[in-house]
Amino acid sequence: MSGNSFGQSFRITTAGESHGPANLVIIDGVPAGIPLALDDFKPDLDRRRPGQSRITTQRKEPDTPQILAGIFDGKTTGTALAIMIANRDSRSSDYLAIRDVYRPGHADYTFDAKYGRRDYRGGGRSSARETVTRVVAGTVARKVLAHLGFRVQINGFVKQVGDIVAKINHPEKVSRADVEANIVRCPDPQAAKKMIDLIDKVRSQRDSIGGIAEIVATGIPVGWGEPVFDKLKADLGKAMFSLPAVTGVEFGSGFKAAQLRGTEHNDLFYKKGNKILTHTNHHGGILGGISSGMPIIIRCAVKPTSSIAQEQTTVTTGGEKATISTKGRHDPCLLPRFIPIAEAMTAVVLADHALRQRAQQNK
Amino acid sequence: MSGNSFGQSFRITTAGESHGPANLVIIDGVPAGIPLALDDFKPDLDRRRPGQSRITTQRKEPDTPQILAGIFDGKTTGTALAIMIANRDSRSSDYLAIRDVYRPGHADYTFDAKYGRRDYRGGGRSSARETVTRVVAGTVARKVLAHLGFRVQINGFVKQVGDIVAKINHPEKVSRADVEANIVRCPDPQAAKKMIDLIDKVRSQRDSIGGIAEIVATGIPVGWGEPVFDKLKADLGKAMFSLPAVTGVEFGSGFKAAQLRGTEHNDLFYKKGNKILTHTNHHGGILGGISSGMPIIIRCAVKPTSSIAQEQTTVTTGGEKATISTKGRHDPCLLPRFIPIAEAMTAVVLADHALRQRAQQNK
Amino acid sequence: MSGNSFGQSFRITTAGESHGPANLVIIDGVPAGIPLALDDFKPDLDRRRPGQSRITTQRKEPDTPQILAGIFDGKTTGTALAIMIANRDSRSSDYLAIRDVYRPGHADYTFDAKYGRRDYRGGGRSSARETVTRVVAGTVARKVLAHLGFRVQINGFVKQVGDIVAKINHPEKVSRADVEANIVRCPDPQAAKKMIDLIDKVRSQRDSIGGIAEIVATGIPVGWGEPVFDKLKADLGKAMFSLPAVTGVEFGSGFKAAQLRGTEHNDLFYKKGNKILTHTNHHGGILGGISSGMPIIIRCAVKPTSSIAQEQTTVTTGGEKATISTKGRHDPCLLPRFIPIAEAMTAVVLADHALRQRAQQNK
Amino acid sequence: MSGNSFGQSFRITTAGESHGPANLVIIDGVPAGIPLALDDFKPDLDRRRPGQSRITTQRKEPDTPQILAGIFDGKTTGTALAIMIANRDSRSSDYLAIRDVYRPGHADYTFDAKYGRRDYRGGGRSSARETVTRVVAGTVARKVLAHLGFRVQINGFVKQVGDIVAKINHPEKVSRADVEANIVRCPDPQAAKKMIDLIDKVRSQRDSIGGIAEIVATGIPVGWGEPVFDKLKADLGKAMFSLPAVTGVEFGSGFKAAQLRGTEHNDLFYKKGNKILTHTNHHGGILGGISSGMPIIIRCAVKPTSSIAQEQTTVTTGGEKATISTKGRHDPCLLPRFIPIAEAMTAVVLADHALRQRAQQNK
Repeated sequence: MSGNSFGQSFRITTAGESHGPANLVIIDGVPAGIPLALDDFKPDLDRRRPGQSRITTQRKEPDTPQILAGIFDGKTTGTALAIMIANRDSRSSDYLAIRDVYRPGHADYTFDAKYGRRDYRGGGRSSARETVTRVVAGTVARKVLAHLGFRVQINGFVKQVGDIVAKINHPEKVSRADVEANIVRCPDPQAAKKMIDLIDKVRSQRDSIGGIAEIVATGIPVGWGEPVFDKLKADLGKAMFSLPAVTGVEFGSGFKAAQLRGTEHNDLFYKKGNKILTHTNHHGGILGGISSGMPIIIRCAVKPTSSIAQEQTTVTTGGEKATISTKGRHDPCLLPRFIPIAEAMTAVVLADHALRQRAQQNK
Repeated sequence: MSGNSFGQSFRITTAGESHGPANLVIIDGVPAGIPLALDDFKPDLDRRRPGQSRITTQRKEPDTPQILAGIFDGKTTGTALAIMIANRDSRSSDYLAIRDVYRPGHADYTFDAKYGRRDYRGGGRSSARETVTRVVAGTVARKVLAHLGFRVQINGFVKQVGDIVAKINHPEKVSRADVEANIVRCPDPQAAKKMIDLIDKVRSQRDSIGGIAEIVATGIPVGWGEPVFDKLKADLGKAMFSLPAVTGVEFGSGFKAAQLRGTEHNDLFYKKGNKILTHTNHHGGILGGISSGMPIIIRCAVKPTSSIAQEQTTVTTGGEKATISTKGRHDPCLLPRFIPIAEAMTAVVLADHALRQRAQQNK
Repeated sequence: MSGNSFGQSFRITTAGESHGPANLVIIDGVPAGIPLALDDFKPDLDRRRPGQSRITTQRKEPDTPQILAGIFDGKTTGTALAIMIANRDSRSSDYLAIRDVYRPGHADYTFDAKYGRRDYRGGGRSSARETVTRVVAGTVARKVLAHLGFRVQINGFVKQVGDIVAKINHPEKVSRADVEANIVRCPDPQAAKKMIDLIDKVRSQRDSIGGIAEIVATGIPVGWGEPVFDKLKADLGKAMFSLPAVTGVEFGSGFKAAQLRGTEHNDLFYKKGNKILTHTNHHGGILGGISSGMPIIIRCAVKPTSSIAQEQTTVTTGGEKATISTKGRHDPCLLPRFIPIAEAMTAVVLADHALRQRAQQNK
Repeated sequence: MSGNSFGQSFRITTAGESHGPANLVIIDGVPAGIPLALDDFKPDLDRRRPGQSRITTQRKEPDTPQILAGIFDGKTTGTALAIMIANRDSRSSDYLAIRDVYRPGHADYTFDAKYGRRDYRGGGRSSARETVTRVVAGTVARKVLAHLGFRVQINGFVKQVGDIVAKINHPEKVSRADVEANIVRCPDPQAAKKMIDLIDKVRSQRDSIGGIAEIVATGIPVGWGEPVFDKLKADLGKAMFSLPAVTGVEFGSGFKAAQLRGTEHNDLFYKKGNKILTHTNHHGGILGGISSGMPIIIRCAVKPTSSIAQEQTTVTTGGEKATISTKGRHDPCLLPRFIPIAEAMTAVVLADHALRQRAQQNK
């Protein structure tokens, strides 16, 4: 059980190392007849792409997907879809220095201990390179949701970098354009500027900085999610924690709920037109594990990039004391590129639960 | 795919409503030959039990388990274990008032919308009553870990209630006795007293209060967890988010990581004896999804109990305006009884990954 | 992975030993709102019940099911259904003799070797007693199919006992009444009489006899089943081979296909009304793993009961030579009671694929 | 749930159409450190390869695998393995004729009905081309079994073609060399000659012929397989029925068991050295779903190739009467090339259960 698939009815299975020949994903459960072209993948891949701005890693990865299976005459066949992204610009030589030493904050030591060996070039399977297949799967998931007639919108943005917190009064009204208006993907322009300055600063100091992403999903009908183990919150939570560098996840009121009273936290129902809504949205769009029709609000804490150019102490694979300063090209802050990845995993979970609900629901 | 099983190699499947005849769990993957008696379940069930102290709900549930399958001559057979807890003290009449109205913060509305109907007696399947089977499964999971030779300790405690934060300098040294020294399950005696006072106060105000639980697991060898989707963090995160009322989950530095720099956050490796350790534990015992051998630190935000005796506005099932004040007997703060449940789910995830690792590892 | 669940979208998980307190099943994926009463289970349970006629075992098992979860006001809730059948009439003493000896044809030896121990009373988990939960699940599966609007009919009958082969020209026209017209469940009255005589004879000789069952499912729309691993044929095949004593399974032409040419075997398509049919049905209702709309024809070979009253040589658990003659009350021929069990598993697979197809199909 | 993965602990997920860019497989659960080179795949791929002899299809497919992921320095990493076989020699033009017509015996009609569309070039996903990934997975499965220290041998051979039945007194002694001694893969030389003559004859008559394959697996320790749904028999049965053209599967005595008495069929235990064996092997190496240590004997009935050059009547996609004679290059008898595929699926199931047993067993 190497735990390499995600989802039940919409199911993705991935493979690939950062410096291997390719990353790839097989996607099962896609309905037939959905138009799918290589250009469909470009917007999200470009948002994830290294080298997209001065505050991201300067690695160049063209990230051109190839559809290997599951498509005919430009439309999905209903059978397994397979998409491959060949790896290019792999400077393996950058990594020779870390062959025999454990980078702090990385999976080098745990991989060696688990498997008895590891692909030390760029982290191998533990590299964030694997998220490229998640973005591809997210694009397909969004198309599935649209094909099924759901007008689901999934928008993520950077909520916080270091101590700089964006002020977003209506997260459910943030648009893709608001997010893409600046290179840090924060829809609060004042905060965005400060965030960019901060990232510039930590980079110049050969350091890195953490942050918080907020993902908002709207247009989800009431009724998705399962009541016990596969609560929508549980599956989304797992999706986010399966991403590299995520140290915390919260929904709606999140950790602030600890300080609130029931009278403050309970979201009171009311009717508007023929819809039942809540005045507030502390519950973050999920009640009892099931979508309520209100916007789903997810926040992810993302740690500062572990790869930094400053010298740190560590041990060698043999247990000797050593020092290390990572030479590769790395993001000084993971957040800007984290947004499309977190959106993609949100889309994957929602497509899965949309299909699951179709199976069981009465019409 | 009603999502009613959890785990792969150690796998639990549950059923039961709060006011139905019984709650039950089938557990698969338990090795043969583990001694198991009804008394083994008592300590954890007693810690979860309603009516255990003045700050919990005063409902009485004897919670006597029966082993229906999987045991012979007092030991597990290696085949499916089935354990049932019959439901007693069910005052269904308490709930007639809510048959036609949606309780704020509850799953009443989402269940009705999803299924077209619901068991309105105490929330039916959405009731926290279902957690009794998780505690039972957790007891079995701990026995499995011990049987396999792992000296895993899992201790949870209340870290925060409202604004009162416990001061725990060495969470990995907190013992069960420390936790059970007071009825709020907080090992900081000063904070515990204030928490109890606060809970007394909110109860007298017919209100409720949220809080934060911290779960610490020690004795886990390096190497458990899978590198991509089934990261240990992802499976533990899902486990926690599958619990009622959880609004946030974090590991190690958690949301504080957002404010830290790489130079601060990276945990530097060193060798002590023949073990590789880290000086700090911001990573919370999991690196790249795989256990590092350091203590696993999980924190869960738990919202204030939704059922409160104060009057709140809501809508009826027909969409009419209504008011409601819950009459049942409810916990003014969920945290004290949350501890054994969160510990149990932690044990379930660890037992699963222990077995999974056995399957694949080289010896 | 103890392999104790079956199905994906309609999913059953069972537990129970022949001489333990109860057998039980948890069923996931059942749509909400299906009326379900204890009487619904009676017809199939009665057909499976020991002691139903002189040619079956004379054990008495009342087989009264209890619904423990998943029902409210007489209808399914959409959440996990749990049904328990308590075990009665358990003469454990019958089995003391076999505690230390391996019965030929039974799982005694393989269980001991696998688990290091076994519940020797009646075979424990390996007892055919576990099939009682499959029959219960089959009843629910049939109700699900009907609730979804499918007029699926599943009829099984005894095709062969020893050398006596029934002549059934139109298996798709055999009715439940035809099958139940005699105690051997063979709709060819001449063959039925000979089969009963043969079973009487082998019983008087303290021996047992094998046979072949044929299961016919009609009313299945074209399009169920998945193209590669979860072919309808593959899932039905697994279902049948998961039943005790099954030594062979075939669909349509089955093993006779080995002797046929393509020109003989190919079923030619034609149109009748707005339906596409085939003139012949060598393919047994499944093409490329997917239902064709033609009747599904399954045949199962069932070995002679392993428990016989004649003395046989074997070894003890310690490896010493020994003799054994089984003293319990056993069926001289498993076929009559096999029919409702095989029908039930067919229904479980079909309900699963009906739900799976709902998830993915375009409407 | 498009059912596109197989196995639990050793798990394969495939994709690919006959005339798409590539077929590929992702394999999870492979232990780390197993040497794996492209040459390892060659023997089994060559045995499956079209055009290998005059009695198989004359299509040319070089079948050169590429390892895309999961390998480093020539050894498995323990993470997901991905292997791709690019498709070449695809004469799509051969298939234009069948775009609008349903080939008898094929999945054309059921795919169209299920998905609303199909890749008509060579059957798309329903093409036997997909079995190339199974053979690749089988090679890896065999290496896993060897790496774990099991000396499992899996040998398949052609038992019957049309009416010609091979005489094999000791199937467990048949070697790979015996099988490969002739192009029909039948270790009985007299029968082999007759089979080849028969296949030559049906080909010259533009017809095809069915047959029976026998797969024998030795060296399996007692204790693999699960007691209820995932019986070794059930998982092997599913594996075989998931292969194209299989119409029947039997173990050990198989359908002959119908005619036997318990006194004849029961395999009596005896001890030899420190092993417990049975004098006969009617049970085919599996008792109660669990391997007994005796050779596992599987037999598969394979229908005659549906694609034949003779003219047959059928209907068009619009339901009009039509005639068809398949023009592509097809095997007159599927059996010779079926052997390596059936062996591969046997290996996949055994590797899965070997890993599953490691997870749960006491040592």
